[in-house]
Amino acid sequence: MAIEKISPSTNGGTHVAPLDASKLVVNLAKTLKPLVPSEDLIFGETKTDHMLVVSYEPATGWSAPEIKPYGPLNLDPASSCFQYCPNVFEGMKAYLGPNGEPRLFRPDKNMERLSRSVERVALPPFDTSVLLELIKRLVMVEARWIPSEPGHSLYIRPTVIGTRAALGVAASDSAIIYVIVTPAGPYFRGSVKGIPLLAVGESVRSWPGGTGGHKLGLNYAPGFLPQRIAAKQGYSQILWLLGDDAKITEAGAMNFFAVARRDDGDLDIVTPPLDGTILPGLTRASCLALLDGHTQGRLTLPGIALTQRLYTHERTLTMSEIAAWSADGKLLEAFGVGTAVIVAPVGRIGWEGKDLVLPSEETGLGPVGKALWERIVDIQVGKVEWEGWSVSCV
Amino acid sequence: MAIEKISPSTNGGTHVAPLDASKLVVNLAKTLKPLVPSEDLIFGETKTDHMLVVSYEPATGWSAPEIKPYGPLNLDPASSCFQYCPNVFEGMKAYLGPNGEPRLFRPDKNMERLSRSVERVALPPFDTSVLLELIKRLVMVEARWIPSEPGHSLYIRPTVIGTRAALGVAASDSAIIYVIVTPAGPYFRGSVKGIPLLAVGESVRSWPGGTGGHKLGLNYAPGFLPQRIAAKQGYSQILWLLGDDAKITEAGAMNFFAVARRDDGDLDIVTPPLDGTILPGLTRASCLALLDGHTQGRLTLPGIALTQRLYTHERTLTMSEIAAWSADGKLLEAFGVGTAVIVAPVGRIGWEGKDLVLPSEETGLGPVGKALWERIVDIQVGKVEWEGWSVSCV
Repeated sequence: MAIEKISPSTNGGTHVAPLDASKLVVNLAKTLKPLVPSEDLIFGETKTDHMLVVSYEPATGWSAPEIKPYGPLNLDPASSCFQYCPNVFEGMKAYLGPNGEPRLFRPDKNMERLSRSVERVALPPFDTSVLLELIKRLVMVEARWIPSEPGHSLYIRPTVIGTRAALGVAASDSAIIYVIVTPAGPYFRGSVKGIPLLAVGESVRSWPGGTGGHKLGLNYAPGFLPQRIAAKQGYSQILWLLGDDAKITEAGAMNFFAVARRDDGDLDIVTPPLDGTILPGLTRASCLALLDGHTQGRLTLPGIALTQRLYTHERTLTMSEIAAWSADGKLLEAFGVGTAVIVAPVGRIGWEGKDLVLPSEETGLGPVGKALWERIVDIQVGKVEWEGWSVSCV
Repeated sequence: MAIEKISPSTNGGTHVAPLDASKLVVNLAKTLKPLVPSEDLIFGETKTDHMLVVSYEPATGWSAPEIKPYGPLNLDPASSCFQYCPNVFEGMKAYLGPNGEPRLFRPDKNMERLSRSVERVALPPFDTSVLLELIKRLVMVEARWIPSEPGHSLYIRPTVIGTRAALGVAASDSAIIYVIVTPAGPYFRGSVKGIPLLAVGESVRSWPGGTGGHKLGLNYAPGFLPQRIAAKQGYSQILWLLGDDAKITEAGAMNFFAVARRDDGDLDIVTPPLDGTILPGLTRASCLALLDGHTQGRLTLPGIALTQRLYTHERTLTMSEIAAWSADGKLLEAFGVGTAVIVAPVGRIGWEGKDLVLPSEETGLGPVGKALWERIVDIQVGKVEWEGWSVSCV
């Protein structure tokens, strides 16, 4: 099915106000909250002082964007966001650069994906480059909340929700964009060890023709019950399988990578392909680019020999294959990647009643995962420059 | 995967307040809105004077339920309902009975399904029979809004949303139940003719292991874009297909029925089975029960000969089969059923670039659809008593 294209500034041929950063109104909080010590941060729990809000009505278009004190949204109970869930979001992070300046990591990629997500659930479109400008303004206002410790950051959550206040099942012709930020330490705090995954095929996260390739809020709630059941069995996340051949799709809310050693010592690094059932993760794309860069001699990954060849593969990966590699002693490591975790080691995988234990269960990240984590963090904080990935907000 | 059972009044072993109708607080609006003439009603657009609201927090349990003036919900922007969409709802209707008393149609079935939906997205559980008592109280408070015209009713929308205000991807341990009502005329107003459906297989509504068998808000937004594209091609709803064999699942947000005439004049009435990809619709179940009742001689459907045998089948139904019946002149009618529409005739089905035109395109409901519509409405308004399906709120 062709994806419908609508010009950002038109609505059925009638010109309405486009999203416009020059109209930004900043209303600062009268008193500021005390900062939370970095060691006490739990992912996504701390609310900062301000948020960005802008709304769309079909008759008038986008309102003047506002940075204002963090506070509740007031919404009609019939709103589409509650009833039919046309809600999309992004996950981004801000870091402090070498001169203390706030930086973002490949934010244009988040904006491209957000634009596709908005389109997929038929929300009113807008120019995401304008939103990026507004996000930078919000990050500057909230800069004191950016933790400076390595692996810490200010997590940014741009969200778009449908606010049509009527129960007829139809696309939401009104919407709110809002952006909140929250200081973040490591996602799996205290787990330097590998995380345990439970491979699940009875509940299915996504399907060909479904929405698993888009960053929609509605992709997540179906995983809550399986995740709770897995947690009771001692697993911290689900490894989502698809089909009779137990194809691996994602791990929790992360993209999945497995590393296998060849007989000659070269490494195969495999991640499932973007076939519409997999979220096109920014960290996934960045890992692939860095691994390829190493093998091409364009960069050196820390701790990996210059001569070590890393062959990346975006292809179908089944549980049987992982199990065979493990049995043959070829499985070097597996890890999940995503904006929140960056790179998280997999310790074991529960599958068909048995646990497949990975070498990194006790040690945490293996050599490839560790190299990626270090290089990405170095780029994010501006210590290493690489292809303009780190963008200053100033 | 086994479905987790949690006792309604416990939370991790700690007893917290259960949902309790005896704690109901009623705060009536100071001024009431003017009623909307029935001919001006558009489905789901009119807001009445009051709503029911009750909230859950893990430390304390369910709050005192409140009937209060209709108004906005105030929610933290990090709330799970916006971010990860653990939102469920039901569709019910209230009718005026012979003595002017408000009546509900098989409300216990809605409550059973709601309970399953709440469990599926790991929301805090509650005793839905208590919620039903509260819904009856709300209907009595809003009784002046129930239209008395045939085919009209007060549509009731019980909703449960997750309100955990943190961004970590996990089940929502807090929630709000709210119930809003809206006076409703016929869903497809002005369309006495059959509705045109576009059969779509590239986008899929649901899949094995997915959530299509539960009444979750998140099942609906993925259909908005396909529906908009279909509307531009002149079709009013999507006929959702699944798999390479083009299995029919649902029509828009309705269950689907097709009627084929046998050589001997008996009728086969086929609807897809409840295999987890199909919503277990109340109207679907009621249609099957009434059709079986007719063939068993337990009731007579209006306009259908006593001797006319109606064989119901809950089984896989493919587009090829529909097309073959149509080509052979055996396809008598097809219709969608649901709480909002009751029974809606299908006029034509666009599939593989051609339109399959049904006999009821010009005339609207065929004999079976019409008989079901009439009998269900008669039962709903208490004109015909049948197995306790119509329940007085008094």
